[in-house]
Amino acid sequence: KVKNTVYSDKSEFQTIDIIETEGLGKVLLLDGLVMTTEKDEFFYHEMIAHIPMLSHPEPKQVLVIGGGDGGTVREVLKHDTVERVVLCEIDGKVIDACKKYMPQLARKLDDPRVEMQVRDGVEYIASQKAQFDIILIDSTDPMGPGEGLFTEEFYKNVNAALKPGGIMAAQSESPFVNKREMKLMYPLLRKAFPIVGTFVGPIPTYPGGYWSWAFCSNTVEPNSFIDEKRAEIIAKDAVIYNTDLHRAAFALPNFVKELVK
Amino acid sequence: KVKNTVYSDKSEFQTIDIIETEGLGKVLLLDGLVMTTEKDEFFYHEMIAHIPMLSHPEPKQVLVIGGGDGGTVREVLKHDTVERVVLCEIDGKVIDACKKYMPQLARKLDDPRVEMQVRDGVEYIASQKAQFDIILIDSTDPMGPGEGLFTEEFYKNVNAALKPGGIMAAQSESPFVNKREMKLMYPLLRKAFPIVGTFVGPIPTYPGGYWSWAFCSNTVEPNSFIDEKRAEIIAKDAVIYNTDLHRAAFALPNFVKELVK
Repeated sequence: KVKNTVYSDKSEFQTIDIIETEGLGKVLLLDGLVMTTEKDEFFYHEMIAHIPMLSHPEPKQVLVIGGGDGGTVREVLKHDTVERVVLCEIDGKVIDACKKYMPQLARKLDDPRVEMQVRDGVEYIASQKAQFDIILIDSTDPMGPGEGLFTEEFYKNVNAALKPGGIMAAQSESPFVNKREMKLMYPLLRKAFPIVGTFVGPIPTYPGGYWSWAFCSNTVEPNSFIDEKRAEIIAKDAVIYNTDLHRAAFALPNFVKELVK
Repeated sequence: KVKNTVYSDKSEFQTIDIIETEGLGKVLLLDGLVMTTEKDEFFYHEMIAHIPMLSHPEPKQVLVIGGGDGGTVREVLKHDTVERVVLCEIDGKVIDACKKYMPQLARKLDDPRVEMQVRDGVEYIASQKAQFDIILIDSTDPMGPGEGLFTEEFYKNVNAALKPGGIMAAQSESPFVNKREMKLMYPLLRKAFPIVGTFVGPIPTYPGGYWSWAFCSNTVEPNSFIDEKRAEIIAKDAVIYNTDLHRAAFALPNFVKELVK
């Protein structure tokens, strides 16, 4: 139930709306699709950030592509190993709107460790070689401004931008609603990375209530390492994250295995 | 999107509707609430049946309370250890309607191993002592005809109806939508059983897309045993079930741990 519209604008790339709702707090919509809600944004942001971050022994340099709402950056900054987070978001208006109207998400974007790159992630990544321990693709669906983030060339450039031992995680859509998109995406990932895993988790307000992320690396197998000490600190204040859930997230239902194989 | 109403009636206990939909096939509603849809009933029925059934080395005698649609009985009968399944459903009209209009669910209710008890589960269970290896509580929400299935007395009677080594599993509502109900239910379960676990799984059409079940026993800890040989056979034809998922289902997000502790 919508209470009122807080913000509504059209950028060069998309329409941006922030609405105040009865049960979900403020909700960010891009081109009319729900991106994140204050009530359950934790589910998505904890999964995309903590699973790769805690699979790395010392993530110092982190890149987030997309994620202009700031939620992923906020979770990344909970890891005190981090020296720099680059946020590469194509649409400055999303960042500005979230800073103003959704501070729960965006409140860490002014942290001195954050470097803003308001530009196309496809271009940015092409110039980065062996720079990052962790790269998180926090994109919209593979249409509109996010389209270029679902190509073989992009994934190969992401791989090249990783340091040795680096890990990329990318949102990879709903196994219920976006079967077609998943079947297209995973073969492209496999062309760019020797190791491609998938993890899943609940997100009540997303279609089907269930989401997937890709876990890609040249060297790090999913669940081969969890930094237990750092994980304990992260789990203490997390809504969902704990190390049991971390390990369990890679156990896929049969039909999801089919989609990503 | 509703295409048309296939069946609509009012029994002694509730209103029963079966509607044909655009995307979910036929849908069963009791008192206006979605109970099961042809498209995704597998998620619920595989979880409630296979996780307890495969945690037991040789389940021969099985009781299902509620579950008049027949989906849980159908999954139970996939285990060839089963000699008898009692279906104790209070509302004969639900059984008849599902047999007629939702054969995908109800088609095994005429199996010779099935014994029908069309009566109140609360009464039935009180007369059963050490009869069952597995008892599955496939109930509606804790209001209306299902209310008596959420009491300490009922759970104690269920425990008494289990054979040594027996396991009860019960649907325990949505961790997103039914927090209050879960907080009431688990302390009652703990009064009746020394071992009370919880497992979770995705169900796209249920509120929040995510569901929970209780796993209770006098002797069997969750994940202490999976019959790998039988599990392999079950997993082969399952939409979601596999042993990795079985183990992972007991890994709870932090906020769910809070609800059930």
